[in-house]
Amino acid sequence: MERIAIYPGSFDPVTHGHLDIITRASKLFDKLIVAVLNNPSKKSLFTFEERYELLKETTNNLSNVHIDTFSGLLIDYCKENNISAIIRGLRAVSDFEYELQMSQMNYQLNSDVETIFLTTRTKYSFLSSSLVKEVAKFNGNISDLVPDVVLKKLQDKYKQGGR
Amino acid sequence: MERIAIYPGSFDPVTHGHLDIITRASKLFDKLIVAVLNNPSKKSLFTFEERYELLKETTNNLSNVHIDTFSGLLIDYCKENNISAIIRGLRAVSDFEYELQMSQMNYQLNSDVETIFLTTRTKYSFLSSSLVKEVAKFNGNISDLVPDVVLKKLQDKYKQGGR
Amino acid sequence: MERIAIYPGSFDPVTHGHLDIITRASKLFDKLIVAVLNNPSKKSLFTFEERYELLKETTNNLSNVHIDTFSGLLIDYCKENNISAIIRGLRAVSDFEYELQMSQMNYQLNSDVETIFLTTRTKYSFLSSSLVKEVAKFNGNISDLVPDVVLKKLQDKYKQGGR
Amino acid sequence: MERIAIYPGSFDPVTHGHLDIITRASKLFDKLIVAVLNNPSKKSLFTFEERYELLKETTNNLSNVHIDTFSGLLIDYCKENNISAIIRGLRAVSDFEYELQMSQMNYQLNSDVETIFLTTRTKYSFLSSSLVKEVAKFNGNISDLVPDVVLKKLQDKYKQGGR
Amino acid sequence: MERIAIYPGSFDPVTHGHLDIITRASKLFDKLIVAVLNNPSKKSLFTFEERYELLKETTNNLSNVHIDTFSGLLIDYCKENNISAIIRGLRAVSDFEYELQMSQMNYQLNSDVETIFLTTRTKYSFLSSSLVKEVAKFNGNISDLVPDVVLKKLQDKYKQGGR
Amino acid sequence: MERIAIYPGSFDPVTHGHLDIITRASKLFDKLIVAVLNNPSKKSLFTFEERYELLKETTNNLSNVHIDTFSGLLIDYCKENNISAIIRGLRAVSDFEYELQMSQMNYQLNSDVETIFLTTRTKYSFLSSSLVKEVAKFNGNISDLVPDVVLKKLQDKYKQGGR
Repeated sequence: MERIAIYPGSFDPVTHGHLDIITRASKLFDKLIVAVLNNPSKKSLFTFEERYELLKETTNNLSNVHIDTFSGLLIDYCKENNISAIIRGLRAVSDFEYELQMSQMNYQLNSDVETIFLTTRTKYSFLSSSLVKEVAKFNGNISDLVPDVVLKKLQDKYKQGGR
Repeated sequence: MERIAIYPGSFDPVTHGHLDIITRASKLFDKLIVAVLNNPSKKSLFTFEERYELLKETTNNLSNVHIDTFSGLLIDYCKENNISAIIRGLRAVSDFEYELQMSQMNYQLNSDVETIFLTTRTKYSFLSSSLVKEVAKFNGNISDLVPDVVLKKLQDKYKQGGR
Repeated sequence: MERIAIYPGSFDPVTHGHLDIITRASKLFDKLIVAVLNNPSKKSLFTFEERYELLKETTNNLSNVHIDTFSGLLIDYCKENNISAIIRGLRAVSDFEYELQMSQMNYQLNSDVETIFLTTRTKYSFLSSSLVKEVAKFNGNISDLVPDVVLKKLQDKYKQGGR
Repeated sequence: MERIAIYPGSFDPVTHGHLDIITRASKLFDKLIVAVLNNPSKKSLFTFEERYELLKETTNNLSNVHIDTFSGLLIDYCKENNISAIIRGLRAVSDFEYELQMSQMNYQLNSDVETIFLTTRTKYSFLSSSLVKEVAKFNGNISDLVPDVVLKKLQDKYKQGGR
Repeated sequence: MERIAIYPGSFDPVTHGHLDIITRASKLFDKLIVAVLNNPSKKSLFTFEERYELLKETTNNLSNVHIDTFSGLLIDYCKENNISAIIRGLRAVSDFEYELQMSQMNYQLNSDVETIFLTTRTKYSFLSSSLVKEVAKFNGNISDLVPDVVLKKLQDKYKQGGR
Repeated sequence: MERIAIYPGSFDPVTHGHLDIITRASKLFDKLIVAVLNNPSKKSLFTFEERYELLKETTNNLSNVHIDTFSGLLIDYCKENNISAIIRGLRAVSDFEYELQMSQMNYQLNSDVETIFLTTRTKYSFLSSSLVKEVAKFNGNISDLVPDVVLKKLQDKYKQGGR
């Protein structure tokens, strides 16, 4: 039986922190779906399509990683795709509290899908998409924190006066 | 002397987690006032009147529980109504930090009113009104998490295209 | 019906932090039992009898406070004495985690007894019996942190070469 | 390629909380090794052999779960047995801090072995071997918290005057 | 060599908690710059100029404290002004997580600038500008929490119907 | 006026994490005293003299760092040596709680001495003397975590059958 896991998120944009989790999770399962949440009520710097494309481009070296999108309840997507585990990255205590709450709600909704946590590598422990955007906006050096293609896109966005 | 406690909140909407705290707190005091905060600057799914009515309906089996509303400072309401204790439910560390801060500010404003904390039962430890709304919006099964009357109202709201 | 609460602890020795919780809790219930845990396997600076006597002496101004002792399971003592609430003081996050665990275990053992938490006043937020002993041992000034009778006893202990 | 995970611990004794993690983790991997740490410098209620036997007995319904023992560094055991993941259960914030530290040290020692975390079910969120022993010692009812065979052994231990 | 530190913030408005940190930090360095962040995308009750003026007025007794403003990346301001340390006040666990993240990002951007933390005095441990505004809005007594000049300005704002 | 800071600890043994804090703190003050606590009631792997010598050897490149020892109350040592700041390294939440408590007690004992916190670099965020010893005991590779001279001494200790 093939074991499939999902790594859901906004990925606005994907960072080296996300890619580290993706690489490590891909080794633990036969197939890893990285799923971009389409949430029209939440503002994002990159469009839904851009976020999807950046993930495609930055994970094309990982043969068992597939990029997809979803809207609605994650747990419904899991049922339809025979997914046995949700992957989440953990950085800090405040992450942990929220993640614990979500995993317990998801278990309440469907006890067949397991949530498993990987901890971010120490060198990325401070890294988040929102912090990367905040720094990029003022031309801070983030070349160690995101892939080159993301770096370029971020610079383009802020040249055009992105939020 | 009659001992009166207050359990304040937004109750947007009331959940089984709230009702568990209300039931338990009602046994510790002669009278428990459950007070809905009327805060026009905060968006809610249910109107102020709906939140009040749902509380009335779901607590009418508890004879020493009274539903009321307030706006302004909680501590002023307490003074006017001879309330000796504010009841708060605690779920997690991030709750605790915020609640600790509020209880210390309230003590600074009036040292005669005590804040006391009950911990939520483990089976409701992940439950919040906002999470319930998020799940209900996408037709997730929340029948174990809210009373039937709230479940029905939530389904009505989202059929009508609620936020 | 008389409502009785219990405030259990080691009280090795009682501090102004404990007395603050005792005073505030005594106003919320008809009767407050302060119960010294007799745990022979845990080393203490003060004997069981000394800890009991110091509590007696420092609470004799509070008419509805009774000092008692217990060994074994707290929840058994509660059942035998018609106690409806266990009082615990909360200082910090690490306290909270442990206290949450204990309250859930006690609820598992007997769901009729409620655990309620009071937060320590900010000026005592750093205070613990063990820290007081550590400072007293080296003649640090702790006169603001413990009652005079406790201060004197602590000084006596350490003159005699206490741990 | 077979994927093997390890769930290490003291299991003094195994509880329903451990068995819940074992059952869930066994579904995520081809093989799960539950490994009892043999640490002579740490006191335990049950002997090393008893802890091993109780695990054997309580997991014999899970065909891909193997019980083993280890001493020394966990990461060395992992290398010798081609283990790709260490499983840890998470209950609370203080757990999380310690577990995060250990997983980072293990990654420093061998970056090929991943640590993954499962959160305990809410109904076992307060459960630990040491708390179970504390309650069993005073004849508290723990029949919902440990398997029957463990319950019986615990009662035997404390009749014989166990610690 | 002169050692310069910076204490950055929104100061909307400055409280006794901020002034306590400013006073203490000013003793540790030859010069302390208190820098008001000009962030047009974040709503504030007081204008940028008002926040600057209130800081000027309330720190004019401290000869080595200078008030300034900045926009953009803090770390760029630090480089231009030969600043060796960023001062941050810590109140609680959730503060700590966020502050840790920011300090690690700033270190990533420039490892020459150190972030150092002072803990707020216990009597101000619950105090924040936003909580002060919430209470002032409903005429709660905050005279112990902010300087007189700030108190007067707050009362003026809310008479004029401030947010 | 010369500003002197102190970095107290057990240093059993000194790690790269300690040396990172020492190096960074030495730049913020005119003089930094690194003080080894002589606490006969606490067991250590290295003798008091060894810990002192290892610190001497590993910091001899830092001209304004002085190694000393103390027993008794830290705050008394500070008064006698005109020390204006106590330096502490922060790794995690549980560190923070304890450190906050100690800094508030020290402030209660002497409000002239400030406690300031530096956060450990992410690459050392998991590092502690006790963890280093645990790994060294079983021949795990810790060459990135401690200076060479410490590594050699640790290997000697465990060859001789150290705890």
